[in-house]
Amino acid sequence: MKNDNLETMRHSLAHIMAAAVSKLWSGAKLGIGPSVDDGFYYDFDLGEATISEDDFKRIEKEMRRIIAGKLEFVRTEKTVDEALAWARDNDQPYKLELIEELRDAGEPISFYSCGDFVDLCRGPHLANTSEVGAFKLMRVAGAYWRGDEKRPQMQRLYGVAFATDAELQAHLAQIEEAKKRDHRKLGQELDLFTFSDLVGAGLPLYTPRGTVLIEELKNALKEISAKYDMQPVSIPHLAKIELYETSGHAQKFADELFRVKSHYDQEFVLKPVNCPHHTQIYASRPRSYRELPLRYIEQTMQYRDEKPGQIGGLQRTRGFTVDDGHTFCRVDQIEQEASVLVDIIEGFYKSLGLWGEHWVSLSVRDYSAPEKYIGEPDDWDAAESMLASVAEKHGLDARKMEGEAALYGPKIDFMFKDSLGRETQLATIQLDFAMPKRFGLKYTDQEGAEQVPVMIHRAILGSFERFTMLLIEHFAGRFPVWLSPEQLRVIKVKDLPEVDEFAERVMALAKEHGVRATLDDSNNSVGKKIRSAEVAKVPYSIVVGEKEAASGQLPLRIRADLVADETAEHVYAPEQLIKSIANEARGRVSKSSL
Amino acid sequence: MKNDNLETMRHSLAHIMAAAVSKLWSGAKLGIGPSVDDGFYYDFDLGEATISEDDFKRIEKEMRRIIAGKLEFVRTEKTVDEALAWARDNDQPYKLELIEELRDAGEPISFYSCGDFVDLCRGPHLANTSEVGAFKLMRVAGAYWRGDEKRPQMQRLYGVAFATDAELQAHLAQIEEAKKRDHRKLGQELDLFTFSDLVGAGLPLYTPRGTVLIEELKNALKEISAKYDMQPVSIPHLAKIELYETSGHAQKFADELFRVKSHYDQEFVLKPVNCPHHTQIYASRPRSYRELPLRYIEQTMQYRDEKPGQIGGLQRTRGFTVDDGHTFCRVDQIEQEASVLVDIIEGFYKSLGLWGEHWVSLSVRDYSAPEKYIGEPDDWDAAESMLASVAEKHGLDARKMEGEAALYGPKIDFMFKDSLGRETQLATIQLDFAMPKRFGLKYTDQEGAEQVPVMIHRAILGSFERFTMLLIEHFAGRFPVWLSPEQLRVIKVKDLPEVDEFAERVMALAKEHGVRATLDDSNNSVGKKIRSAEVAKVPYSIVVGEKEAASGQLPLRIRADLVADETAEHVYAPEQLIKSIANEARGRVSKSSL
Repeated sequence: MKNDNLETMRHSLAHIMAAAVSKLWSGAKLGIGPSVDDGFYYDFDLGEATISEDDFKRIEKEMRRIIAGKLEFVRTEKTVDEALAWARDNDQPYKLELIEELRDAGEPISFYSCGDFVDLCRGPHLANTSEVGAFKLMRVAGAYWRGDEKRPQMQRLYGVAFATDAELQAHLAQIEEAKKRDHRKLGQELDLFTFSDLVGAGLPLYTPRGTVLIEELKNALKEISAKYDMQPVSIPHLAKIELYETSGHAQKFADELFRVKSHYDQEFVLKPVNCPHHTQIYASRPRSYRELPLRYIEQTMQYRDEKPGQIGGLQRTRGFTVDDGHTFCRVDQIEQEASVLVDIIEGFYKSLGLWGEHWVSLSVRDYSAPEKYIGEPDDWDAAESMLASVAEKHGLDARKMEGEAALYGPKIDFMFKDSLGRETQLATIQLDFAMPKRFGLKYTDQEGAEQVPVMIHRAILGSFERFTMLLIEHFAGRFPVWLSPEQLRVIKVKDLPEVDEFAERVMALAKEHGVRATLDDSNNSVGKKIRSAEVAKVPYSIVVGEKEAASGQLPLRIRADLVADETAEHVYAPEQLIKSIANEARGRVSKSSL
Repeated sequence: MKNDNLETMRHSLAHIMAAAVSKLWSGAKLGIGPSVDDGFYYDFDLGEATISEDDFKRIEKEMRRIIAGKLEFVRTEKTVDEALAWARDNDQPYKLELIEELRDAGEPISFYSCGDFVDLCRGPHLANTSEVGAFKLMRVAGAYWRGDEKRPQMQRLYGVAFATDAELQAHLAQIEEAKKRDHRKLGQELDLFTFSDLVGAGLPLYTPRGTVLIEELKNALKEISAKYDMQPVSIPHLAKIELYETSGHAQKFADELFRVKSHYDQEFVLKPVNCPHHTQIYASRPRSYRELPLRYIEQTMQYRDEKPGQIGGLQRTRGFTVDDGHTFCRVDQIEQEASVLVDIIEGFYKSLGLWGEHWVSLSVRDYSAPEKYIGEPDDWDAAESMLASVAEKHGLDARKMEGEAALYGPKIDFMFKDSLGRETQLATIQLDFAMPKRFGLKYTDQEGAEQVPVMIHRAILGSFERFTMLLIEHFAGRFPVWLSPEQLRVIKVKDLPEVDEFAERVMALAKEHGVRATLDDSNNSVGKKIRSAEVAKVPYSIVVGEKEAASGQLPLRIRADLVADETAEHVYAPEQLIKSIANEARGRVSKSSL
């Protein structure tokens, strides 16, 4: 089934579901019922009645009856007045409202029927109900009519649908897996972050374990950036609104800006982005062509006043930390600078095993309307060809997307695919011919003339919050050794002086070599302690008892996904073990060589 | 001259200055004229007339005439009505206001005269004007009557005064030195930080060089803290006001809180402190006695809505980064935890050469009013004796200050003296019996009963902003090698292939070993290049010419203050040089061993 057919089929299923619900709840008032990404939904107003998951079986049964009836989808047309009369006669106030809005077009209005169920609908539909594929009702949720919280709340019933049952089952399995990997669930189980009613929604607090994860990511980026002579800077989190009026962000973010009132007749804004601040460091002294490029980077927090309904877990938060960077350079340096950034992106994603699982968009002008872009056409030509050349030299296999450039410059976006097959845009390299002009940035060229630098915005991982969510779900909490909050669990079998001493020697070695180890000396059974280490998804664990204390040799338990060689034996002396773990962490490898 | 006498002498000088100004500006209306830290001031209302620095000479001359007159200070008393009549007769409206306020006491009011100058004054004064020591008028500034911006603005004339001329000259020299070291001046010269009108006052932006300094301090603290198993956590910068109503900070900070309005019927506060957030991480799961102590640390920004008039440089800013930490422990763990914190403080200040230049206050209850303190008397007894024991075991020679404890717990404060002799409170260890109760924090003890933990707040360096200011002025911009934004300047004599190659080899080695080096390949003369490195206060510099390229040997120039052995020769092969600098930085030594 082609995508178009899949969409048609899902839309037809929405109708079939509406027919079924109308049959089961007489007097049901219908809203709209479109196809969506993986299926379909329909909005119902059932008055006092509510649909619960317990009802799904009988709705599905009624749907299957309709499908088995091989009912044809028949298209008819009505005049506006006929359509309004139909809506009134059938007591369908929501349809009435929709039809009213079609009045001005002055055209006949299309309806589809299947059996005795008739619905206002633009179509298209399948030929008959028997052509639908595999489907399943999934959930029911409240939804305001037309998304307006002042209008009536309806019940939105969701279903998933695929061409074949195999595809449906695969999708259901993926949903089950995604539930198991849900970062909110794992975040709590692995003690990575928390929320507090006193602090507020959308404001995560990272526990010591979660902070390790974030800090390791930060350090990895800092290390790679240092190789390429990036210069960390540090800015305050507030600025006057004038800064964002100059940059254009006041208009762009509008209601997303958090405004901060001072008691002293001043108003500040919590920074929604960092670029305007960085321009002010550039502008703090005269610049010569010899100084360029200036490559400012900073790991810092940004703020957006998100709608309460859109906040959840780490996906969308009111404050989030970014790994930000702005390069100021001459036009002739764009290729070199973009190339450095691709190197950094490649290096970082390789250390996570995500390089290769990506595609790249090279977003250029809409050549049919070049006048709408800011900056000199010559500079655009040069910039676009340099970005294309960078993409080629790095073997990025970039798809050229005409018209996808920002108004102020072309860009390269990196889309990564996680282990659940979901795609997210993470890294980006974005040229900007406009902002340096807005802030009057200058440099003196070789001839002593004033020139305007180009600015390159770049993100490596986007926000640490969203990226942490992605990593938790991608790895299902089984992080590579270098990212694991706890790298080694030392399980003590019993309290004996020689066992205590040996366990403490291992712990001391771990600390000395920067290996994050925890000693389990609780009173639980060894079996329970081993399970507890497994639940915590600790990469390595060792059980220390009399035998180990006597021999000085430690049999190592390795988390299954890390094992590179299943046949190898894993017994180590303490120092050898600890040093090897430290080395793996330092090397940011994704498999164990132990 | 004892301190009391010095104060009396300074106060008498204020009178003598007022007499002189009244003589020179007839109709001068007098405010108040107290002694201050290093001298005295007096507030004058001269109507349209203004005092400028040009007038200082003739005011001083008139003062010396009065002093030479050996006029006696004579105390007299007036009834309130007589005093009011005096103020009216002499057209002294400010004195009138002050006398009105003394009316209720119903006591006679004291005046002092010297010659024909009479002033309302509580005294005491010198016997006669000839007893004053050495003095000098310093500056004049606007000051609102009674500090109220709605009252008239007066002119505040400042003088310094000491017992001997030698002491005065030493003080003036110190003021000159402080001016040279002013962090705002050096911050600009050394390119460490900047301010922007578009960003706003009190909101510093750190340039790459300034950021190096801050990051080195942060890393030093992180490294020391890691040794003692501190656990970094990470919190958002916003919270609902309810968090601070619970902690008590909403009342305490009141107008200093920055309030943040959301578009969605919510109000947030920019965090003025971090402790309430940290309690929420503690509270995120049940805690057992076995888990304690929990030692949360975080380097993060705090915000205070400071009065515009009080903002300046890095001394007082609207956002500032702290090295914060909160330990949650049992009462019996206080000694061990406080001891760890003293170790960290000692380690950190030793790396700056500031350990030894300090005194310590052990702040305990006012034993005459034990009822006003929060917490169990037994816990207070235990805590105070444990802090005293920690101070003793660390040889802190702490001064016990009765009544200086906070209401919620005793504390140890560390006061450090900088190279200009100025004292600042920087580190502190503060027990808190109240906040855990306010947030309902609990742990389960060995018997399974619920207990309330103690909280220890601690600061190592206060805010990075204020500490950076202190370091810039303490070192006069000549930072130890480990803190220097630029550690090595490579000065190229001329453009020759072999010189270029050699200089680049040195630069590559520097990068490889993490030494912060800059290549000066400008067209300036070698002399100018050397001076430029000196102005930038770079610890090490080398001049690379044909001779050096041929011999492979580098004569090293060492910043004067770093030289440990004046007689030693300083010629090195590149690798040896770079490795040695890297080692010194890693070791955070304060003198050069090169």
